[in-house]
Amino acid sequence: MDKIVRVNMTDLTTRTEAAPAAWTGLGGRGLTSTIIAAEVPPRCHPLGPNNKLVFAPGLLTGTLAAQSGRLSAGAKSPLTKTIKESNSGGTAAQQLAKLGIKALIIEGHPTTEQWHRLHVTADGVSFETADDLAGRNNREVIAAMNEEYGNKVGVLTIGVAGEMRMAAADISVKDPDQNIRSHGRGGLGAVMGAKRVKCITIEDPGAAKVPVADPEKFRAAAKIFAKTLLDHPVSGQGLPIYGTDVLINILNEAGGLPTKNFRFGRCPHHDAISGETMHDVIAERGGKVKHGCHAGCIIQCSQIYTTESGAFLTSGFEYETIWGLGANAMIENLDDIAECDRLMDDIGIDSIEGAVMLAVAMEAGVIPWGDGKECQRVLRDEIGKGTPLGRILGNGTSSVGRAYGLVRVPVVKDEGIPAYDPRSVKGIGVTYATSTMGADHTAGYTVATNILKVGGYVDPLSKEGQVELSRNLQIATAAVDSTGMCIFIAFPMLDIPETFTSLIDMINAQYGLEMTADDFLKMGKTILKTEHAFNQGAGFSKAQDRLPEFFNYEPVPPHNAVWDFTDEELDEFWNF
Amino acid sequence: MDKIVRVNMTDLTTRTEAAPAAWTGLGGRGLTSTIIAAEVPPRCHPLGPNNKLVFAPGLLTGTLAAQSGRLSAGAKSPLTKTIKESNSGGTAAQQLAKLGIKALIIEGHPTTEQWHRLHVTADGVSFETADDLAGRNNREVIAAMNEEYGNKVGVLTIGVAGEMRMAAADISVKDPDQNIRSHGRGGLGAVMGAKRVKCITIEDPGAAKVPVADPEKFRAAAKIFAKTLLDHPVSGQGLPIYGTDVLINILNEAGGLPTKNFRFGRCPHHDAISGETMHDVIAERGGKVKHGCHAGCIIQCSQIYTTESGAFLTSGFEYETIWGLGANAMIENLDDIAECDRLMDDIGIDSIEGAVMLAVAMEAGVIPWGDGKECQRVLRDEIGKGTPLGRILGNGTSSVGRAYGLVRVPVVKDEGIPAYDPRSVKGIGVTYATSTMGADHTAGYTVATNILKVGGYVDPLSKEGQVELSRNLQIATAAVDSTGMCIFIAFPMLDIPETFTSLIDMINAQYGLEMTADDFLKMGKTILKTEHAFNQGAGFSKAQDRLPEFFNYEPVPPHNAVWDFTDEELDEFWNF
Repeated sequence: MDKIVRVNMTDLTTRTEAAPAAWTGLGGRGLTSTIIAAEVPPRCHPLGPNNKLVFAPGLLTGTLAAQSGRLSAGAKSPLTKTIKESNSGGTAAQQLAKLGIKALIIEGHPTTEQWHRLHVTADGVSFETADDLAGRNNREVIAAMNEEYGNKVGVLTIGVAGEMRMAAADISVKDPDQNIRSHGRGGLGAVMGAKRVKCITIEDPGAAKVPVADPEKFRAAAKIFAKTLLDHPVSGQGLPIYGTDVLINILNEAGGLPTKNFRFGRCPHHDAISGETMHDVIAERGGKVKHGCHAGCIIQCSQIYTTESGAFLTSGFEYETIWGLGANAMIENLDDIAECDRLMDDIGIDSIEGAVMLAVAMEAGVIPWGDGKECQRVLRDEIGKGTPLGRILGNGTSSVGRAYGLVRVPVVKDEGIPAYDPRSVKGIGVTYATSTMGADHTAGYTVATNILKVGGYVDPLSKEGQVELSRNLQIATAAVDSTGMCIFIAFPMLDIPETFTSLIDMINAQYGLEMTADDFLKMGKTILKTEHAFNQGAGFSKAQDRLPEFFNYEPVPPHNAVWDFTDEELDEFWNF
Repeated sequence: MDKIVRVNMTDLTTRTEAAPAAWTGLGGRGLTSTIIAAEVPPRCHPLGPNNKLVFAPGLLTGTLAAQSGRLSAGAKSPLTKTIKESNSGGTAAQQLAKLGIKALIIEGHPTTEQWHRLHVTADGVSFETADDLAGRNNREVIAAMNEEYGNKVGVLTIGVAGEMRMAAADISVKDPDQNIRSHGRGGLGAVMGAKRVKCITIEDPGAAKVPVADPEKFRAAAKIFAKTLLDHPVSGQGLPIYGTDVLINILNEAGGLPTKNFRFGRCPHHDAISGETMHDVIAERGGKVKHGCHAGCIIQCSQIYTTESGAFLTSGFEYETIWGLGANAMIENLDDIAECDRLMDDIGIDSIEGAVMLAVAMEAGVIPWGDGKECQRVLRDEIGKGTPLGRILGNGTSSVGRAYGLVRVPVVKDEGIPAYDPRSVKGIGVTYATSTMGADHTAGYTVATNILKVGGYVDPLSKEGQVELSRNLQIATAAVDSTGMCIFIAFPMLDIPETFTSLIDMINAQYGLEMTADDFLKMGKTILKTEHAFNQGAGFSKAQDRLPEFFNYEPVPPHNAVWDFTDEELDEFWNF
């Protein structure tokens, strides 16, 4: 039976319910957004008693389907004040799915200062005191939990940033190798901190997979699905070999690599921070070039990046983080960038928001441009210790911009804009402007079609076709985010028809459904509209579906492109 | 001829234009809001090149009408992101009016780091360097300008808070006694700082009044008008004797005096900070109990508050500031409160926003409750020096709440809620929620009718009649704010028919018009709608016309009242 598990932090009770009929066919983002929209008042304070934090594995999570191990976390975001879904790899999704937990809902508000942790097993959820873990960083928490429960325990944890309810705080998820993946965007770690839940541990019943209605049909579809992932050049070759950082040189070439806080579209030291360089450094030092964030990942875009002497430095070292620190904040040394990434994972700061924020702190004169060591110091000694400067920085890009009265502050709905200049990759600008999530590139990754020529080609410098492209991708993504699938299945999905048909076949085989491709996209549309309605209830109007003004009047080299969409053109997005 | 003077900070040019016909009959807030709505893109960055800062004397300013010396300042607010009008006493309004300047518009964006000051005379506006004034506080600036031009020079100046573009920064205006009045609310000092205008000096042509079409009719009306002000118990007795601080005991008695960051509705040490106590202290020390903020003020609600030894400490020492520091931040010593007020005037922080913010900083644990000396230290050494903590505090209440992840943060549209608990004075709650300005009590001062029983009586604890009361007052206030009149003419206006008729008579006599009372209120409605449309363009929807959530679920003693308006009830406000 699919279970909904509720944890009430007001009276420290838990309740297990059968999933209501209305939630059948929902998982991941579809479920977190449905629950938040149904149960959280849109105008509530994100850190107050009426917000809820929901974790939901995807529809296919816990099966043998490749790439299906993503966990969705949802809440009203303290950063954007919109509804939020942020998904992550790690082991927790599959463990919750195997326990038959469709959603774990943390609600209510603590009445004392005590820290708690939740221990989830087949018997339910128990509360443990976590005062001994308070003030400790994510790696320490994982080590302590491993010691208590063994290495197979699933761990969701917040660092000190989440404890301090900072709006850039993320939620860390232990991966199969005891490293960290993150529910990065939107400050969900602050919601967990406001609930005074320091960590959640999960013990699953072992090797069992989730039940599947038609195992044979499922296996056949899963095989086709996996093959198409390996056949596509992006998911089968580019990502496995170079990781997501393969994009540095590609975006630099395209003139869409934001540099020095979005002043330029190309970075002079792009080679030093490129995926190709990273690959060689890792290989030379004996790190791991390929690594999966969850069992069943065959793309393996992650890696283990080590120090020169071969000690672990970081993993899940992504393009957006490397771009933000390397190009946008002008840090030329990849080891310094890796150390920043490690620190952000450890104190529990979204490494995209953190990177975009650091460049704005440089704009403010708080940190010298390109000073990686000083970035490490502020992460460790200011944010990590909750000093006033740490509070300014830990609350994200928009917080820094406001504190120092800056104008060139790249945010939408107070969330830092990542890695792709919207002036020279216009489709992604439409996504940033219109997404229900704030400036999430993954919400509708037009870079695929604008730059990588996946799913056709839409000229990144022309306005034509961008709204439609972003709309189609945002709809498909909302549905894919509900399956537990990693977003990178989108590359083959856009080029190889069988990726999509086998995905649908797997869902139908698992649940005994007869969902069509149209139904799947309809689900995506419904999710977007549910999220949009929540945001409207929270006070957002179409006039907030806009990019910051400086993109309109500051042309970005080398194309000297500006952001030139009219309001009317952007508002077309919601005509579906 | 009525002149519009434009100062362009991009190319350091000025231009004088005849006021366009469409602006005839507009002054003060009506004019600033019309200009901002017409010329400033609603989505622009308040500190960027497309915002404008507009100063406009009222329609009657510069005449012999009592109370007519208020100056309106308007811009898109860096604090609320709404359109903003903030009006102030001082000498500048009358001086601009005598120069025939209907509006002074500062536009464009400086291309260098240089500080400027503007010198306004009958010959136009000249640019002077102000690098020598940068980093200096308002009193020093006034002293320096007095030295340069003599004591009669008009001065508008920003302190270091405005230089640092802090969202709580105000614009100071020199009063007839060389002291400070303020365009307090909405952070307009940050807009002036972003334009890199440190101060504006005005030399008027001497004793001449502005031209009046029918001087005899004007004089007759002005006499009636003045008499009604003196006849009314609030404007004729309460305010002159005790200042606005007369409200401490009244609001305490009513249970609407927010105490300890809006936890309680009564303050145990209300006597120590009351208007009655202040009156006695001032009288005993030989300060000035009565004092006007501009020539022609006959209410004289201001005062000169001195130290025990008789040295000047502060003036324009208002109820809202004393409430915020005394009751809400629990500072029991009136001298400590006065020193905070003096410091806020000097560094250029709105003393309402500053006071509300300090209580939230206490909530955050940054300052001990009631510690007046520590408040003085943070004002002087943190905000005044732009430290990271100072940046958090200097950006206002909402900034502090965000930085420390707090939930009990009394703001509407990011502006601190002043002095009257909306749960137990429900009419003012409607004003806070619906005003185009954020949480401005002066936008529709229902306290008059809810508490002082002026203009009838509407039970402050009942929802009934509050929306209509707030609507009527907001409409009338928008019109009154256009006349250059001090808001306190509202008291007699609500009770004595001749106040209103003589006000209209004066406007008609001055301009040769035949405006009716209906026309006057129609002007108020038009102003509100113009402002509302701007805000909608900036992204505000009715779902933002709400109070913070904690007012809904935290009952406030002694009445244990909660904020219980439905969305539909509040949305009725705009049905006119």
